[in-house]
Amino acid sequence: MLQTTTLTVTFLPGGEEIEIAPGTTIAEAAHQAGINISVPCGGKGICGNCRVTLQEGEKPEPTAAEIRLLTPVELDAGVRLACQCELTGSAVVQLTHVPQVVGKKGLRHLQLRGVPLDANVKRHVVRLGAPSLEDQRSDFRRLAEAVGASCIDLTAAADALRALPAALRADNYQVSATVVGCRLADVIPVYAAAPCYGLAVDIGTSTVVAYLVDLETGQPVSSAADHNPQIRHGADVISRVEFANTSRNGLIELRQEIIATINDLCRAAAEQAEIDPRFIYEVVVVGNTCMHHLFLGLDPRYLAEAPYVPVTDEPVSARPADLGLQVNPRGNVYCLPCVAGFVGADTVAVIVAEEMTRQPYPALAVDIGTNGEIALWSGEKLYVASCAAGPAFEGAHIERGMRASPGAIDHVELADGDLRISTIGEEQPVGICGSGLFDALAVALESGAVQPTGRMTNAAEAAELTNGIRDRLVGEGNDRRLVLAANHNHRGEVYLSQKDVREIQLAKGAVRATLEMMLEYAGLAVEDLHEVLLAGAFGNYIRAESALRMGLLPPMPANKVRGVGNAAGSGAVLALISKREREYASQVAAQAQHLELFREREFQNRFAETMMF
Amino acid sequence: MLQTTTLTVTFLPGGEEIEIAPGTTIAEAAHQAGINISVPCGGKGICGNCRVTLQEGEKPEPTAAEIRLLTPVELDAGVRLACQCELTGSAVVQLTHVPQVVGKKGLRHLQLRGVPLDANVKRHVVRLGAPSLEDQRSDFRRLAEAVGASCIDLTAAADALRALPAALRADNYQVSATVVGCRLADVIPVYAAAPCYGLAVDIGTSTVVAYLVDLETGQPVSSAADHNPQIRHGADVISRVEFANTSRNGLIELRQEIIATINDLCRAAAEQAEIDPRFIYEVVVVGNTCMHHLFLGLDPRYLAEAPYVPVTDEPVSARPADLGLQVNPRGNVYCLPCVAGFVGADTVAVIVAEEMTRQPYPALAVDIGTNGEIALWSGEKLYVASCAAGPAFEGAHIERGMRASPGAIDHVELADGDLRISTIGEEQPVGICGSGLFDALAVALESGAVQPTGRMTNAAEAAELTNGIRDRLVGEGNDRRLVLAANHNHRGEVYLSQKDVREIQLAKGAVRATLEMMLEYAGLAVEDLHEVLLAGAFGNYIRAESALRMGLLPPMPANKVRGVGNAAGSGAVLALISKREREYASQVAAQAQHLELFREREFQNRFAETMMF
Repeated sequence: MLQTTTLTVTFLPGGEEIEIAPGTTIAEAAHQAGINISVPCGGKGICGNCRVTLQEGEKPEPTAAEIRLLTPVELDAGVRLACQCELTGSAVVQLTHVPQVVGKKGLRHLQLRGVPLDANVKRHVVRLGAPSLEDQRSDFRRLAEAVGASCIDLTAAADALRALPAALRADNYQVSATVVGCRLADVIPVYAAAPCYGLAVDIGTSTVVAYLVDLETGQPVSSAADHNPQIRHGADVISRVEFANTSRNGLIELRQEIIATINDLCRAAAEQAEIDPRFIYEVVVVGNTCMHHLFLGLDPRYLAEAPYVPVTDEPVSARPADLGLQVNPRGNVYCLPCVAGFVGADTVAVIVAEEMTRQPYPALAVDIGTNGEIALWSGEKLYVASCAAGPAFEGAHIERGMRASPGAIDHVELADGDLRISTIGEEQPVGICGSGLFDALAVALESGAVQPTGRMTNAAEAAELTNGIRDRLVGEGNDRRLVLAANHNHRGEVYLSQKDVREIQLAKGAVRATLEMMLEYAGLAVEDLHEVLLAGAFGNYIRAESALRMGLLPPMPANKVRGVGNAAGSGAVLALISKREREYASQVAAQAQHLELFREREFQNRFAETMMF
Repeated sequence: MLQTTTLTVTFLPGGEEIEIAPGTTIAEAAHQAGINISVPCGGKGICGNCRVTLQEGEKPEPTAAEIRLLTPVELDAGVRLACQCELTGSAVVQLTHVPQVVGKKGLRHLQLRGVPLDANVKRHVVRLGAPSLEDQRSDFRRLAEAVGASCIDLTAAADALRALPAALRADNYQVSATVVGCRLADVIPVYAAAPCYGLAVDIGTSTVVAYLVDLETGQPVSSAADHNPQIRHGADVISRVEFANTSRNGLIELRQEIIATINDLCRAAAEQAEIDPRFIYEVVVVGNTCMHHLFLGLDPRYLAEAPYVPVTDEPVSARPADLGLQVNPRGNVYCLPCVAGFVGADTVAVIVAEEMTRQPYPALAVDIGTNGEIALWSGEKLYVASCAAGPAFEGAHIERGMRASPGAIDHVELADGDLRISTIGEEQPVGICGSGLFDALAVALESGAVQPTGRMTNAAEAAELTNGIRDRLVGEGNDRRLVLAANHNHRGEVYLSQKDVREIQLAKGAVRATLEMMLEYAGLAVEDLHEVLLAGAFGNYIRAESALRMGLLPPMPANKVRGVGNAAGSGAVLALISKREREYASQVAAQAQHLELFREREFQNRFAETMMF
């Protein structure tokens, strides 16, 4: 063997880890870890665009290209060119902060039912009569009466009033007036053709997604997504709460991190749509209760200790500048209501997106993120509950987990006694994303590679397996793994490990136990459910068959299970474009009965059962 | 004569001018000009508290005390001790900015009718039940339900939510919650005994007055008044508008000046009441339309050119920080509505203070400030109009004019063929305040010292006068003057000059012409008026007889004329302590019919008549 050692590289902010051979460039290591670093010049070291920061670890001598393209101050601070810098020791690399997914493709996660456009933000184009001694109405009253049909109690921000006289007179009293709620936010001469946008933000524990929406058409036009940077303080909400409680300025730090990320996403989505973020007049925010609290800077301490009380679960309106959001300063930020300490605005948004409580039949919605949230509509009553699923369903803590980007295994099936995989973009496999993970586990169970207890079939038992599967099972005990793709061109082996199976097992067990107890509480049988909605960043991709095979859901016909994509994001978009749907969200939150299941002894018993496959 | 020259000293920000002998100290000159400079050490040059700035003029050598108590940088900048610095040439002296009147004595200008306390700001002291697994309501909902009786749609400022969990738990869920409108502004443990105050501000063209009101009792507790610092850019509103239009950053400068003064007044009034300004939760502001615009930073340009259109005449709510006011940042600033370009919120406040439109009988209110505003209630309709009275009625442009502070002549009457004067505090006379001015003119007219045309009786005509009066008339032509008090101890002669008479003549002519035309427009005779209210900073002091004798008002029984003090300030206080009265102000503004009289040719004819005495 030429290589006697491997180095470990950790990438921030996502926390992806990869083992590499010494001498591998950072760009190559990132690629192996499933991360795309843009290398515009093709790695020739001439454009200087692939900057990253080497935060920890041995710093190799700068190459000639790095010396040419980076300043001494940058080099001192650890800034390097990813395509040039060959790692000589284990390292922690901070990626330059660009959102991971930007553009229209993120919009495919949205499933928006048709609602009439009736946004809280409205742009009015009006032509007013000029004042005269016979018509001495003030500038503001003149404008207010022209837009009055939709808002009888119009008021105005002082800034908007300051701009009013000049704007009215700039183009012969033809103006575009943007009204937020019943407050005049902007008055601009018509010729300046100011647009009017909103942003719907879904703050997940692991992932943050923003959708930019044209408020004059109600259509989403671009999106941006990124890791939740708070992930560095811990993968689940409990560790965030702990960090907030125990670190000096912990809460402030957590808040600043999420605000900075939302501002980045906002800029990226706006740039994509070629608009200025100051034309974003409203931001609707959903997230679980902890994310909601951290976003608002509210102490999350009491969420995490009995009796699990939020600071507020009502809708919150705030001004962008009060929260640090860089959109129109006369705009509004609206946080959808939460229900309880662990059932947040994201669950409310899922129910809104699917109009669950407007349906006459029972249905179940499972929002599978780091924190699993489940809503059960009995046809008359709405029950909600939560369970700690852990980050497995979002690809974190999965050894070769990655997000759904090119090279990710997104589909696995059994064929001819072996596995058949497909990857996003049909690229060489570099990792496994959520849907691939569910598929891989389902196939592993079906093929016998994983036992119903979750233990991987050992060598002694492997005789029962097909040759194809047996050959893919390598390693022993806790290092045992099912290889999905061999190590091509040093891109690393992609596999499902024993540890991965245990992570998923805990997650699905918690979800399954919770939803079973909810059904019992509501006096419903599985057969009574008209449909089961699978939501979450990965929800849209998960095949119903895999979810059923791995036992996330109790046995039922697969055609009752429907992936609804990022339904929390869809609900946020609906609340952005429709005041009626926003009001509906408040009704949903008020109506929801929260079931506190963790404290029931029954839950522990049930969990022990539901962990089994 | 030992002294062959006199020096002229001008004091800023008030613009008081005084002639002094060379070698007079600044403190002594100020005293002669009717200004009190506090000299705590009695002028011994040991405390250093009487600092002023010598802005223009010859700078005398610093005394030993000044070298000891002032830094070289201060001396370079012209800072001097008023008790030490003996002037050697004419000079402009900037007084250190301390409000001129602070304390309870300013409250005597208020005439508050009894209204039930129903302020927009309310402090609730509540004791909540602790949360439990059976009662998982959020902190905010728990509180909202406890204060819910008065506000069903309570929302909360993000800052208030941030403080909520700790405040609730600090004293076993006993808190004081301060609610502004329907927005939670502060939550403080009960033991911290947070008070709850409001500030009513009357921004006059020449004078700004602030009243601090305890919002738990509805009682004003202290006040502070000062010059409007914008006076340096011109005494009347038109010159302010010009400055805003023609100076670089003129509008910003004007706004900053008034905001700084209000902050000074606020601090002074709060200090007097021994509270922290952060417990001031609402500021209600009245002023004429131009002052209102400058306060809000609105371009006043179109107020001053036909068709005289305000930017807004609706009530304006804003957050203190948006305007730069240093009170509770979660508080509210509320500007009462205006009516027209020259009929402002101050007039509305006068009508509110006196409930004019709730009376069954016709009445007239005259608010005599730099801009005269007149309201006529016919018993059914409300008419308002304005006239440019000039600053004479506020003591400016009157040669020995001063405000109503110790040493001011406040009363003049005829007795035994001569004048009898009295001064505030029975001190040596140093100037003449508004009421004294009106009295002096009335007496001058009655005694024959001033002719009905406004010309002072010359030496040739003086034979008709009593000896006492004749001896007091000195000087010739435009320098002719009626001496009210001789030059005692170099405090300067106090007199009514020919120029003073001309200033008053213009002012009263404008007011009289306007109110006569209003009566005609409304189809009312003077006899129909049930009463005439005289408002304004000086209104309370003016004797009805003097106002009638000098012809400010048409002939009528003196008992119909009632001084109502600073009725604009009273109206502002009422709007601060009662939502009903605040609503009434909006009704008054909406109901008022503005009469644009200046453009009527009839006005000019009338004015020529009404200028005569």
